[in-house]
Amino acid sequence: MASDSRVLNSALRSRIMSAEEAAALIPSGVNVGMSGFTGAGYPKQVPAALAKRIMDSNLNGKKFKIGVWTGASTAPELDGALAMVDGVEMRLPYQSDPICRKRINAGEMEYIDIHLSHVAQSVWFGFLGKLDWAVIEVAGITEEGHLIPASSIGNNKTWLDCADKVILEVNSWQHPALEGMHDIYYGTQLPPHRKPIPLVRPDDRIGEPYLKVDPSKIVAIVETDLKDRNSAFTPPDQASKQIAGHILEFFEHEVRKGRLPRELLPLQSGVGNIANAVMNGLNEGPFDNLTAYTEVLQDGMLDMLRSGKLTSASSTALSLSPAALAELYTNIDDYRRRIVLRPQEISNHPELIRRLGVLAMNGMIEADIYGNVNSTHVMGTQIMNGIGGSGDFARNAYISIFMTPSTAKGGDISCIVPMVSHTDHTEHDVQVIVTEQGLADLRGLSPKQRAKVVIENCAHPDFKPVLKDYYRRANSYAAGRHTPHLLEEALSWHLRYLRSGKMPRD
Amino acid sequence: MASDSRVLNSALRSRIMSAEEAAALIPSGVNVGMSGFTGAGYPKQVPAALAKRIMDSNLNGKKFKIGVWTGASTAPELDGALAMVDGVEMRLPYQSDPICRKRINAGEMEYIDIHLSHVAQSVWFGFLGKLDWAVIEVAGITEEGHLIPASSIGNNKTWLDCADKVILEVNSWQHPALEGMHDIYYGTQLPPHRKPIPLVRPDDRIGEPYLKVDPSKIVAIVETDLKDRNSAFTPPDQASKQIAGHILEFFEHEVRKGRLPRELLPLQSGVGNIANAVMNGLNEGPFDNLTAYTEVLQDGMLDMLRSGKLTSASSTALSLSPAALAELYTNIDDYRRRIVLRPQEISNHPELIRRLGVLAMNGMIEADIYGNVNSTHVMGTQIMNGIGGSGDFARNAYISIFMTPSTAKGGDISCIVPMVSHTDHTEHDVQVIVTEQGLADLRGLSPKQRAKVVIENCAHPDFKPVLKDYYRRANSYAAGRHTPHLLEEALSWHLRYLRSGKMPRD
Ligand SMILES: CC(C)(COP(=O)(O)OP(=O)(O)OC[C@H]1O[C@@H](n2cnc3c(N)ncnc32)[C@H](O)[C@@H]1OP(=O)(O)O)[C@@H](O)C(=O)NCCC(=O)NCCS
Ligand SMILES: CC(C)(COP(=O)(O)OP(=O)(O)OC[C@H]1O[C@@H](n2cnc3c(N)ncnc32)[C@H](O)[C@@H]1OP(=O)(O)O)[C@@H](O)C(=O)NCCC(=O)NCCS
Repeated sequence: MASDSRVLNSALRSRIMSAEEAAALIPSGVNVGMSGFTGAGYPKQVPAALAKRIMDSNLNGKKFKIGVWTGASTAPELDGALAMVDGVEMRLPYQSDPICRKRINAGEMEYIDIHLSHVAQSVWFGFLGKLDWAVIEVAGITEEGHLIPASSIGNNKTWLDCADKVILEVNSWQHPALEGMHDIYYGTQLPPHRKPIPLVRPDDRIGEPYLKVDPSKIVAIVETDLKDRNSAFTPPDQASKQIAGHILEFFEHEVRKGRLPRELLPLQSGVGNIANAVMNGLNEGPFDNLTAYTEVLQDGMLDMLRSGKLTSASSTALSLSPAALAELYTNIDDYRRRIVLRPQEISNHPELIRRLGVLAMNGMIEADIYGNVNSTHVMGTQIMNGIGGSGDFARNAYISIFMTPSTAKGGDISCIVPMVSHTDHTEHDVQVIVTEQGLADLRGLSPKQRAKVVIENCAHPDFKPVLKDYYRRANSYAAGRHTPHLLEEALSWHLRYLRSGKMPRD
Repeated sequence: MASDSRVLNSALRSRIMSAEEAAALIPSGVNVGMSGFTGAGYPKQVPAALAKRIMDSNLNGKKFKIGVWTGASTAPELDGALAMVDGVEMRLPYQSDPICRKRINAGEMEYIDIHLSHVAQSVWFGFLGKLDWAVIEVAGITEEGHLIPASSIGNNKTWLDCADKVILEVNSWQHPALEGMHDIYYGTQLPPHRKPIPLVRPDDRIGEPYLKVDPSKIVAIVETDLKDRNSAFTPPDQASKQIAGHILEFFEHEVRKGRLPRELLPLQSGVGNIANAVMNGLNEGPFDNLTAYTEVLQDGMLDMLRSGKLTSASSTALSLSPAALAELYTNIDDYRRRIVLRPQEISNHPELIRRLGVLAMNGMIEADIYGNVNSTHVMGTQIMNGIGGSGDFARNAYISIFMTPSTAKGGDISCIVPMVSHTDHTEHDVQVIVTEQGLADLRGLSPKQRAKVVIENCAHPDFKPVLKDYYRRANSYAAGRHTPHLLEEALSWHLRYLRSGKMPRD
């Protein structure tokens, strides 16, 4: 035993073994709850070791597959490795791995796309079947046997509670000073025994800093020293800066109108480069004393914490680039007080998002002229990532904003279409749509009024005339003029793209 | 002043006038918040008097229109009258009036379809524009000037709080013994000042029995003596009975599996005959000590309260047939203790629905093979009623169930289609689909797995082969096999119906 072992509980030391030994314990056919939320806090050795075992088994003609449940997306060592060897029977609730995605879209792997706030309770309720195993990365094990969470929490509490057998990866790369940053709420119950969740400010601490687990369930502990794999963000491009600019202008307008306090309301910002760029914009904007209640804390938010624009942030994951992570750890004592990491059933809880009045800003694939949003399916059939927490936030937000560049694939695709090819957020849940072209404020507008504003403010000039023409004809010839559509044309833009590589410009 | 006047506050007596005089006060161009939730508790004279005034004005070439905001649907004296004279500029948030519907679908009237739980807060936030007037039916005014609510509450609290000027209809037909049945929660706040709502059981009383209003805002009081207009329910037909049977069987199965307690969880039941039939089924079923947390209390639930199957019910409206209402009033002292009427921002609050773990049962227009649900649009363009509270309940429910006969219009329309022509509830929010053919339990299934179960269990035999064929071809030829669709065919069933009056059977 190395003297610098982070397994301080002596009874548990005997369960330390290699990743290969631990992976050998997991049988085919089980459901495994893994840690990981974005490229943070996922197990880094056992899944890949398991993937190798699965490969051997498959090469020997013995089909070996497991169900893989996580917090959200993970990294190549987990999703990539297991998908590569065709080891995943069913994946949930969110993924963004290229190999995974390819298998799912080839029909070789099943995937269930679930609101992130629904996942933990669906497992407690028994709605997704039995959770057999848990493989969880932690930053250490205390003398008392408590688990110090790593750089994300996700569904770890639930996986540890529900699984029969637990494998822990204790990663000494995770900074020891993370201890105390987490807030694990153990007050959730099954109905009819649920009580109000006592959180009224984004930075309230309502739980405990450690994860608990019945030690008799721990069958293996693997010591690792491997870094998280969040990729760097691209510097904001012109379109992202314009999107950020429109949102800032909108917030300023709302403050002037008395519909938002000067320090705004808690910010939620989705995954990806555009969301990050909006945070960059806010960091240079006129608002101070901001707070965040979100599920991913990306570089842009860390910058805002550093500059003091943001006083505190609540998240379930540190989705930081290597450079930002280095900065976090340099000033960890300050950040630890201002960042709270929570289980995702709390970071994404409808009760709390609604109570706090979060300003939700999420990316999307496409929106239609009536304000329905597709966050997940390219051309209606191919999954990109999944809905993630966007529905939890959009439905319960004070204002729900969706953003995208107005075109994709070098301008061949219009992200504003007559009818979305898949709906994740209905007209009822979408209040603002933003592209680099402009912002459409849909509050208080009927479908037809919305269509005019969406086309006028958000569509790319290349597609604006064709959209206007569609809307005009739909409004003249549709069977119903509440939400006028020409059903024979509504999805023809997607079809044309599939056939010719371009959506129609004339 | 008649000695039996229900306007007990003497200062307010001077404001009593005729409906015509009161209606004459309302100018064109204003937004009017009216009471009314289903055919219960809507103002019965002022809207019709106003409609006549509007007609005169329009006949004289002076355009007269108002915005009409309500709790939900109302009755011919309100929606019908105002729509008939083309007096409505913008209607929200839910309607079910034939004349209204016709005007909306002809493009002559704007309509915004909003989650019922979002309405009150959107008005507080200032997102829908200014609320100028309120016209509210009450059952009486106490000596202190408090308002005794009538047979529905809806958004009355918010209309009274937000409007500049208030007209009250004091309806002596409303039973005096309603006093004490209501629970008006005055603890809601704007973010960032919101606190947990202290309701943990469906029958908890957390507020006050009266509505409050600044007396200086009351510009007119109209005394009426007119009955509510909820229509009678049709006796359950064969299909409804079968749907009810499948749901009962499902609940029994869930209890056996330990996924539901024996007394189930609080029931929510949507509008209409099928929902009513399910309550009839439960009334004859094996479950006792049930509770309800719903927005409409229809005859079926009253029967369950009478039989003792249901111990208590929380609702925002008494949507009872004349016969059921008579029964209610015969035993009002008992029912008053067991029924709580609440503002709709509480009956439909995501925080509370999620906390209580409601079993949500709502009707729909159509579902697609992947489990997306259309509650509102016939053939994708014509509004039927609106989403109502179905989204509030479905998203936050313990189990969310949608039900419909498998066909409509004498069998020419399949209510299970390849792709819904409009989406109100996404695959993420739909756990169970039921038709008279059977029940599809979609929990834990991927889209392709769902498609098989939905087609097999729910589709009508006339359409099953065609649906299977669509799915098979989509799964072979779609660009993506996560949610396989043939975009050129996905909406062709609706198109075929519009062109030929029949969806395809071969
Ligand atoms: C929608 C989402 C994929 C956008 O991601 P992003 O990083 O902001 O956007 P990008 O512009 O880089 O687009 C991602 C990909 O989708 C493609 N794309 C974007 N719009 C498209 C459209 N309308 N049609 C087809 N493809 C499109 C892009 O070309 C890009 O593809 P590539 O990787 O092959 O280049 C992302 O926001 C997401 O997964 N959202 C759902 C989950 C969520 O909102 N979570 C929020 C809480 S964290
Ligand atoms: C969807 C909804 C309209 C169904 O109502 P219902 O009374 O159970 O159903 P019905 O079978 O009587 O259908 C109502 C009408 O829709 C028509 N219809 C039903 N399915 C149809 C379909 N797939 N395509 C076209 N028309 C359809 C029926 O023919 C009927 O038309 P008619 O009045 O001209 O005969 C109703 O549940 C609703 O408004 N839901 C949304 C609001 C809600 O869910 N609130 C819940 C909380 S209270």
